Amino acid sequence: MAALFSPLLDDLIKNLQTLQGVGRRTAQRMAFRLLEHDREKGARLAEILGRSMREIRECRLCRNFTEQEVCPICASAKRAAHHQLCIVETPSDVAAIEGTEQFFGQYFVLHGHISPIDGIGPDEIGLPLLEKRFSEEKFEEVILAMSPGSEGSVTSYYISDIARKYGIRLTSIAHGVPMGGGLEFVDGRTLSVSLKDRKDLE
Amino acid sequence: MAALFSPLLDDLIKNLQTLQGVGRRTAQRMAFRLLEHDREKGARLAEILGRSMREIRECRLCRNFTEQEVCPICASAKRAAHHQLCIVETPSDVAAIEGTEQFFGQYFVLHGHISPIDGIGPDEIGLPLLEKRFSEEKFEEVILAMSPGSEGSVTSYYISDIARKYGIRLTSIAHGVPMGGGLEFVDGRTLSVSLKDRKDLE
Repeated sequence: MAALFSPLLDDLIKNLQTLQGVGRRTAQRMAFRLLEHDREKGARLAEILGRSMREIRECRLCRNFTEQEVCPICASAKRAAHHQLCIVETPSDVAAIEGTEQFFGQYFVLHGHISPIDGIGPDEIGLPLLEKRFSEEKFEEVILAMSPGSEGSVTSYYISDIARKYGIRLTSIAHGVPMGGGLEFVDGRTLSVSLKDRKDLE
Repeated sequence: MAALFSPLLDDLIKNLQTLQGVGRRTAQRMAFRLLEHDREKGARLAEILGRSMREIRECRLCRNFTEQEVCPICASAKRAAHHQLCIVETPSDVAAIEGTEQFFGQYFVLHGHISPIDGIGPDEIGLPLLEKRFSEEKFEEVILAMSPGSEGSVTSYYISDIARKYGIRLTSIAHGVPMGGGLEFVDGRTLSVSLKDRKDLE
């Protein structure tokens, strides 16, 4: 489609489509809305976004996103006192687990999983740093909270290999039929896992 | 919910929700995606967005959004040669009509409609500028392309009052049953209008 607007407005609409899930129509609506009603908020978003892209890096200890050297969770003595480390693939996984309000320890973010075909090996997902932490800190439990799947399994294998060297107790979150999910909606693999991992009723 | 992340990242997620249709979860996904994969594009968006909020104003002639004094459509001699002016409520309406590739004249953007209860009168929607153009330029036809509704009617009434003074031919886009729409899905008012405005078949 030919340019409909002035160059800068066209550019704004094009660049808003950088955002995940935003197509041309949505971008256009967002641009007009900002220009018509929310210029100050739009300017503030521009500033925060620019600063975030420049300043947010990875926490030196857990690799979660932060603009500080050590993120608030790693900096908390209260959390360290639990001596538990939960290993996840992405920062959104941290957010999801924090949302449960059931885990009070620390995290380690892999930012992916081992995938030789994409050139992602142990170094890329931070396993040297993880091993350093295993050797220097005393974790009573390390919980693997990876997405199920073959890549997750390879990654778990690498991590359990390291944990074994340091005699750390390693656990994995449970996989199975989601709560409130009817059995007929669950895929066969999930159902197999949930059968295999069945528990005695107390 | 308590702050989950570092202050800057929290701020980014909060400010992304300024964008229309973006809630907390979407904002979080957008932020993580940008940080993980699209930092350069994110920085570019920040820059363009900031510049847009500062520099995009209204075209001196048609009030459409532009960073230039006169927008590309008003600046085009080819479009002026049609001596047609289409009056719309919003810049998105201009985009929609341009999308049809059926109109080759110029536009005038009201940025709303008359609404005494909101303090929006003829001045707020630019009618003095419109009258100035009616008096200085030679339009063979002025097309009203307002959203149907009572506010649109009041606004149309004001505009037709001015147009009459200058002896300008005034038309309105047709309202009726949408093409491809089954009659059973159309509301009663639309159906009434489409009956009242029925045309002879040639």
